[in-house]
Amino acid sequence: MSNHDTIAETMTDASLARSMERSAEIEKSLLENPEKFRVLTGDRPTGHLHLGHYLGTLKNRVRLQNQGVETWIIIADYQVITDRDGVGPIKERVLSLLTDYLACGIDPKKSTIFAHSQIPALNQLMLPFLSLVTEAELHRNPTVKAEFEATDGRALSGLLLTYPVHQAADILFCDANLVPVGKDQLPHIEQTRLIAQRFDKRYGRAQKDQPVFRRPEGLLSNIMTLLGTDGEKMSKSRGNTIELRMSADETAKRLKKAVTDGERLITFEPERRPQVANLLQMASAATGEDPVAIAESIGDKGAGALKMHVIDAVNGMLEPIRARRAELEDQQDYLWQVLREGNGRANEQAERKLNEVRQAMNMNY
Amino acid sequence: MSNHDTIAETMTDASLARSMERSAEIEKSLLENPEKFRVLTGDRPTGHLHLGHYLGTLKNRVRLQNQGVETWIIIADYQVITDRDGVGPIKERVLSLLTDYLACGIDPKKSTIFAHSQIPALNQLMLPFLSLVTEAELHRNPTVKAEFEATDGRALSGLLLTYPVHQAADILFCDANLVPVGKDQLPHIEQTRLIAQRFDKRYGRAQKDQPVFRRPEGLLSNIMTLLGTDGEKMSKSRGNTIELRMSADETAKRLKKAVTDGERLITFEPERRPQVANLLQMASAATGEDPVAIAESIGDKGAGALKMHVIDAVNGMLEPIRARRAELEDQQDYLWQVLREGNGRANEQAERKLNEVRQAMNMNY
Repeated sequence: MSNHDTIAETMTDASLARSMERSAEIEKSLLENPEKFRVLTGDRPTGHLHLGHYLGTLKNRVRLQNQGVETWIIIADYQVITDRDGVGPIKERVLSLLTDYLACGIDPKKSTIFAHSQIPALNQLMLPFLSLVTEAELHRNPTVKAEFEATDGRALSGLLLTYPVHQAADILFCDANLVPVGKDQLPHIEQTRLIAQRFDKRYGRAQKDQPVFRRPEGLLSNIMTLLGTDGEKMSKSRGNTIELRMSADETAKRLKKAVTDGERLITFEPERRPQVANLLQMASAATGEDPVAIAESIGDKGAGALKMHVIDAVNGMLEPIRARRAELEDQQDYLWQVLREGNGRANEQAERKLNEVRQAMNMNY
Repeated sequence: MSNHDTIAETMTDASLARSMERSAEIEKSLLENPEKFRVLTGDRPTGHLHLGHYLGTLKNRVRLQNQGVETWIIIADYQVITDRDGVGPIKERVLSLLTDYLACGIDPKKSTIFAHSQIPALNQLMLPFLSLVTEAELHRNPTVKAEFEATDGRALSGLLLTYPVHQAADILFCDANLVPVGKDQLPHIEQTRLIAQRFDKRYGRAQKDQPVFRRPEGLLSNIMTLLGTDGEKMSKSRGNTIELRMSADETAKRLKKAVTDGERLITFEPERRPQVANLLQMASAATGEDPVAIAESIGDKGAGALKMHVIDAVNGMLEPIRARRAELEDQQDYLWQVLREGNGRANEQAERKLNEVRQAMNMNY
C-alpha cells in the first residue's frame, strides 16, 4: 500500500499488482489466524439481491464468517439517497436484504447486521473526519466522480460529495481491518486509511500505545463478474438478473430467454463468445465444475441443452437458499429482531469508539 | 422572508428591510407570548468571552430567557476545527464559557446549555440534510465564503464546506423558531429554512398535520458593534478586548490604554471621532445613559476623564458578574454537572427528533 499522504486519483498497474499480492497473503493468514481480522461489508438497499451478488460477494462473506472471521454487515440505507430523490420502498427492501442474508448463510450469532440510519455515534464520526479532508480530495474519489457523471450533470448533492467520509466512518467505527472489494474500490480503502492516519497525527490518541483507528486493507476477490441473461451488465433495472427471491420456475424462464449465439457446438471462449461463456461460468460457479469440461459435456447439443444444464446447476445451488428463504419470509418479527440486535451491538461499538475519539480530541467533558 | 426555492448569495436591501420589520414584530410578540418561541444561540469555544460578546449577545440572551422564552445554547466545539488544525485547550475554554454564561445570568434551570460533540442524534441529521443541498449551494453560504477567503487560500476542509448543514442541524433538532443574528447571518437562517422546507417536501412527515421541522426566523438585534480599545474590531487575537474574566484592575489598565484623539473637548461624533464615540458607547451600554449626555457631562476635561468615567461604568456593570464568576470558579464540579444535564436534555430532544426523521423517511425498522 502507498505511504503517500495524498489521495491518488487512479490506481497504477503497479499498485494494483501490490494489492493483489497483499490480498493473496491475507487469504493465507485468514486461514491460519482468522481471529486477527474483522471484516466490514454491506449493501445499499436499493432492490433485491441477485445471483451476481450471491456469487460475487455474499458467498464469500459466508465463507469468511464460517472460517471464524468476525464480520460486520452494514445495510447502507442513507446511501440510497446519495443520488436519488426518494427512499423508495425502503422498509421492504431492508427486510428483503435481511431475508437474503440469512437465507444465504449469514449467521446473526456470528455476524453483526446493522442499518446505517440506526447508529448515531457512527454518523457523528463524519464531523471530525470532514475536518481531515479537503473538498478537492472528496472530488478525487472514483465513486463520487462516477456517480456524478452517471447522474447526467444533475447538481452534486452534499451527501454524494461526502460519500468517502461516510464510508470511512462505516469502516473505522467498528475496528474493521479488512474490506472485501473490487479493484475499482481500492482508492476508497486508501482514503479511509489516510483519514485514520491523519486523525492519529492531528488529534492524537485515547491510549498512548494505540491509535484510535485501525488502518484497514482491501481484500481483492478473484470472482468473475457475471453478465446478465441479455449478455449485458447484470442490473436490476435491465430485468436481466436472477433474483434470489425468484422461484425455480421463474429462474428457468429467465435463463431460457438468455441471449446466446447461432453456433450449435458449445465451447468456452470468453473473448469470442461472451454470452455462451457467461452461461458456462454461471454453471461452473454453481457446481464447481470447470467451464471447459461443462462445454465438452454438452458438445454439439446446442444452446437449448446448455441452458437446461445451467438451469439445473443454478436451481440446484439455490434450492436450499430458497427453502430457507421461504421459512424466513414467515418470520418477519424474527428478522426485525435480528436487525435490532445487530443495531444494538453496532451502537455499543460506535459509542465506545466515539468516546475514544472524544478523549483523543479532549472533548470529554 | 423570501419564498424562493434557491439559496440567495447576498441579501438585498429590500429583504434586509423586511427582516428588520419582521424582527420588530417578533420583539412585540415576544413580550406578549414568550411561550410561543424557542431560541437557539451559542458560541465557538475558541477563547474567553469579552465585553463585546456580553453587550452584543449574552445580555440579550439573558433578557430573552428572563422574559420566559425557552433558550437553547450550543457550545459549538466542532466548529473550532472548521478552519484550524488543532482543538487548542478546548476543555478549559468550554469551562470558561460555562462560567461566563452562568456569571452573566444564564439560568440552567430555564436554559439548556449543551456541547455539539455530545449529541450524536443531532449530528446524524447532517446525513439527510446533506442530501437536500448541492455543492454549489454550500459554496454560496457567506460564512463558508468569508472563512475560506480568511484562510489565505488554504484548501477548503470538508467540515467548513458543510458548515451550513451543521448549523441547520443545530437549529432544527431542538425545534428552535428564533435565532438571534447579525444581518450577515440572515442567509444562514434562510438556508436552514430551505432545508426544513425541502425535507418536508421530499421525505414527508411523521404526523400528517405537522412538518418534522419548524421553519426558524432570524431575530436582528439593534445593538451596536463595539470597537476594541485600539479602535479596531474587537478580537481576542489583537488583545484589545475586556474579557469578562479580567479583574477590575486589569480592566482599568486596558481601558486607560485606549486610543483616543488629541481634542480635549469630548463630543459624541461617531463618524468623525470613532474612538472617542466608541468609549462613550461603552459607557452608555453599561449604564443606560445617553452617550451625548455623557459627553456633555465630561465636557473639556479630556480623554483622561472620559476614560475614568468608562472605567467606572464598565467596572460597575461587571462587578456583580465578576463576583458570581469568582464563586463559580470554585465550583468546577457543579459547572460540569450543568453541562451534563444540558447534554442530557439535548440528547433526549435530538433522539426524539431523529425518530421523527426516521419515521418520515420510513427508516424506522
